[in-house]
Amino acid sequence: MIIEILSIGNELLAGITLNSNAHWLAAEIANAGGIVRRITVVSDDLLEISAAVKESLARRPVILVTTGGLGATYDDLTLEGVALVLGKQVVLDGRAVDMLKRSYARRDLKYELTEAWLKMAKIPEGSMPIENPVGSAPGVAEQADRTKIFCLPGVPSEMKAVFERHILPLIKEGVGRFVMKEINYSLRGVTEAMMAPALARIVGSNPREAIYLKTHPRGYYRKKTPQIRVQLISRGSDEKEVKKRLGKIATTIEKEVATLGGRIC
Amino acid sequence: MIIEILSIGNELLAGITLNSNAHWLAAEIANAGGIVRRITVVSDDLLEISAAVKESLARRPVILVTTGGLGATYDDLTLEGVALVLGKQVVLDGRAVDMLKRSYARRDLKYELTEAWLKMAKIPEGSMPIENPVGSAPGVAEQADRTKIFCLPGVPSEMKAVFERHILPLIKEGVGRFVMKEINYSLRGVTEAMMAPALARIVGSNPREAIYLKTHPRGYYRKKTPQIRVQLISRGSDEKEVKKRLGKIATTIEKEVATLGGRIC
Repeated sequence: MIIEILSIGNELLAGITLNSNAHWLAAEIANAGGIVRRITVVSDDLLEISAAVKESLARRPVILVTTGGLGATYDDLTLEGVALVLGKQVVLDGRAVDMLKRSYARRDLKYELTEAWLKMAKIPEGSMPIENPVGSAPGVAEQADRTKIFCLPGVPSEMKAVFERHILPLIKEGVGRFVMKEINYSLRGVTEAMMAPALARIVGSNPREAIYLKTHPRGYYRKKTPQIRVQLISRGSDEKEVKKRLGKIATTIEKEVATLGGRIC
Repeated sequence: MIIEILSIGNELLAGITLNSNAHWLAAEIANAGGIVRRITVVSDDLLEISAAVKESLARRPVILVTTGGLGATYDDLTLEGVALVLGKQVVLDGRAVDMLKRSYARRDLKYELTEAWLKMAKIPEGSMPIENPVGSAPGVAEQADRTKIFCLPGVPSEMKAVFERHILPLIKEGVGRFVMKEINYSLRGVTEAMMAPALARIVGSNPREAIYLKTHPRGYYRKKTPQIRVQLISRGSDEKEVKKRLGKIATTIEKEVATLGGRIC
């Protein structure tokens, strides 16, 4: 279940807003057993958006999730960008208008049927609006050859609500049974370079997607003693096998650390 | 001064680590007057890295900054990826070895000349190592046709130190005089849809790179009253002009808000 994330917004490229949406999505997808292969961030520019969508579709992920650019303002261009790639027009969608009306009614909020307001209900021809249970602009689902495209709002609470209701169940269904077990080590007295050969051996002798094994330097303890963090994740469809693999690798790591004169804290 | 950022690391795609590096870099670059056109995140996979580097070079940014993948472990593949795109080999670099030795001596840290340790001094043939004043692995500078490639470590303190010393001065020099002034409004009683036509008019009547104008919905105040945030940035080389433009747009926004029955808090 290969998934790509496309984050759209000038504020992300100007360092104004931290891309917590992509981080949250990536964690949710990983926890469900999906694999995020790429995260791309582009500006609120029609050609940048359409280029990024086109490139992503060429890599044929199962799902492409976009965030941002669904609102009522001049710089909300995500759906125009998607439509451009698919050779479609954006059209006013009756279902989307109804969703918008309901969302305003739910919040007891006035609106006028202005061009800007109706813009939030203009979606690529033949695509499906998705109710936004928190804010205004509906999400959109679209099928492009092999890839399902989901366009989510950029406001985190809205993005999360739409993702949890409409996309996460689809990922879980696609992945099937999935178990993930994790061990984190804090090690003293070994550097990444010292641990490198053991890690390479461990990774080389396990299926690629079954484990995640990574070291991170953590500076120094009492000046001269290096510290590193080791994160080990075992994952798969069979809980017994996942646990067994985790235990086996953990034993190898613990032995290796001792041999190198380091210790686990 | 168009710049791209390529963040490399499985931990970013698995939602384990928040990509604060890209956020920090983007803010630093924007504050210096540079423009980040795209941020890409890929895994520690040779083909993913080289594909992303190749795609970035094809877009011809002035600078491509990569972060991560410079260490001693099996999954540190950034330089191999860059070399692959440029048709080069990675080779042991004497200057990089000296930098590594100094970095260990500085921290009073022991090392052995193992393959893993020396891996941190293997850089693409003809590229330039950059001293890492905080950690181990040197950064790397490489020229690729029109684009300067800078490969920075993934550890934030190391990444920041190398960027500030070696890349930021280059961006500032390339951009020249640069001034940025900002106003943030918190508005009540107007929605994004209500403000949209005014924003479009303002943006349409100013040079594209000279202003940044964006609204963000902020939920509701006392139930029925919508709140939005408006961020207005004016930027350019002439301080007087930057201030004048900011003032003019601010006046327009304030009038517009009043006309729509909203107020500034």
